[in-house]
Amino acid sequence: MKTSFLRDQIVLKKSFLCLGLDSDLDKIPKHLLNESDPIFTFNKILLDSLNKLIVAVKINTAFYEAYGHKGWKTLERTIKYINKNYPDLFTIADAKRGDIGNTSDKYAKAFFSNMDFDSVTVSPYMGNDSVEPFLAYNNKHTILLALTSNKGSNDFQISSNQENNLFKKVLKISKQWKNSNNLMYVVGATKASFLKDIRSIVPNSFLLIPGIGAQGGDLKETFKNGANKDIGLLVNSSRSIIYAGDGEDFIKCSYNEAHRLQQEMQILLND
Amino acid sequence: MKTSFLRDQIVLKKSFLCLGLDSDLDKIPKHLLNESDPIFTFNKILLDSLNKLIVAVKINTAFYEAYGHKGWKTLERTIKYINKNYPDLFTIADAKRGDIGNTSDKYAKAFFSNMDFDSVTVSPYMGNDSVEPFLAYNNKHTILLALTSNKGSNDFQISSNQENNLFKKVLKISKQWKNSNNLMYVVGATKASFLKDIRSIVPNSFLLIPGIGAQGGDLKETFKNGANKDIGLLVNSSRSIIYAGDGEDFIKCSYNEAHRLQQEMQILLND
Repeated sequence: MKTSFLRDQIVLKKSFLCLGLDSDLDKIPKHLLNESDPIFTFNKILLDSLNKLIVAVKINTAFYEAYGHKGWKTLERTIKYINKNYPDLFTIADAKRGDIGNTSDKYAKAFFSNMDFDSVTVSPYMGNDSVEPFLAYNNKHTILLALTSNKGSNDFQISSNQENNLFKKVLKISKQWKNSNNLMYVVGATKASFLKDIRSIVPNSFLLIPGIGAQGGDLKETFKNGANKDIGLLVNSSRSIIYAGDGEDFIKCSYNEAHRLQQEMQILLND
Repeated sequence: MKTSFLRDQIVLKKSFLCLGLDSDLDKIPKHLLNESDPIFTFNKILLDSLNKLIVAVKINTAFYEAYGHKGWKTLERTIKYINKNYPDLFTIADAKRGDIGNTSDKYAKAFFSNMDFDSVTVSPYMGNDSVEPFLAYNNKHTILLALTSNKGSNDFQISSNQENNLFKKVLKISKQWKNSNNLMYVVGATKASFLKDIRSIVPNSFLLIPGIGAQGGDLKETFKNGANKDIGLLVNSSRSIIYAGDGEDFIKCSYNEAHRLQQEMQILLND
């Protein structure tokens, strides 16, 4: 998907909401456990109900790998269902991959060629040649970890000397890589105060913002500091939407939560 | 597996060789393509022939994910086969995972609980709480990326100011994490000159050394600078062993290459 299409969808739907499918057998409504593929059914119900409120879907691969090859099949069914029924949604494999070149080639094949995701999250630790195999795909996007939303981001991403912050180095150096126009970045909403700095380095890139909801980030603050002329933001919410309810009518609760977030976004977009 | 058992195996087998199963349908001998699960058959032949020359097996998950859920099933069959038939081999899921805590929990479940790997490679970028879910498993090992063998390692892991090198920070900080006794580290053989420095920071940890063979690292130099009183090294070779031949007698070529490496190691261990 081209980013210009994604931007148009944001304007059309008045939403920059990304739905995170961190779907977990221990947490989905109990009545779905009788289905032959409970997690696929859960995902399908969420997508069928929420697709007009969202512009992107993020599938967290760990939650599928935890069920082995059957989980991987559920992952494949889910992305196939989205690509067939909701081609207007920007799809993200939240896989945080990255390895030496000939290995990253294989990961890129898995997510871009085989499953046809629009994007995949990648760790920058191994540098240039670990990321370029992903960047080589046309109209596919590599969402590089810059500043993450978790406590551990203080260990390496942020240093006491602000100018030496690793996440800034990641932004600056990655801009020089081949096909860097295919880059987007992960920036945690729990670090909204850094967003102005980040925007000064990557004014035009889309940012994927996790951490709204269960992790405590603030939407208004994020928008104020992070939006650019094309909006340039995807704000992800996973647990606070998909586990909003746990009864047979869970989807009403999920809809209400997604709708509440979309309405907040509409106000911000109108301002 | 306890590291004391691994050390005993190294002494017994006179080898610190790790076999890397980067098994690829495009590269395995053509006659195996008629098998129902060609990659599993390829892996099985290699393991049955080489198990006495090696102390560890590293399975590169990317090569299995590239074939979707069928590839994941081959991965499961392979690790199950090893655990059943060669419980003396230390097993490594070379997956380079790492995410926020509740997600790393799922990855740890996939590799440690479900598939019963002895270890998994993890990227340090997201810090403390992204790694500790792996470290929480008893007698399971987290092999943290420190200094990798690829060109891109110069982007972030090494800086012009030697004292500020990120890989040193990773070694120093990770030592303070909970259950850090379960840590091992990835150090590329192409960076053998750094090994003395690394040993001064983590004198007791096992190091997984990729980059011997196809990537050009030197075994003798690696041993001289990297071995500790318990040896503390696993040197991986993937392509140079598994693709040593491509005919019906490929396994002879693989055996010869693995044997050559084991003999080199035996000399180093005897010295």
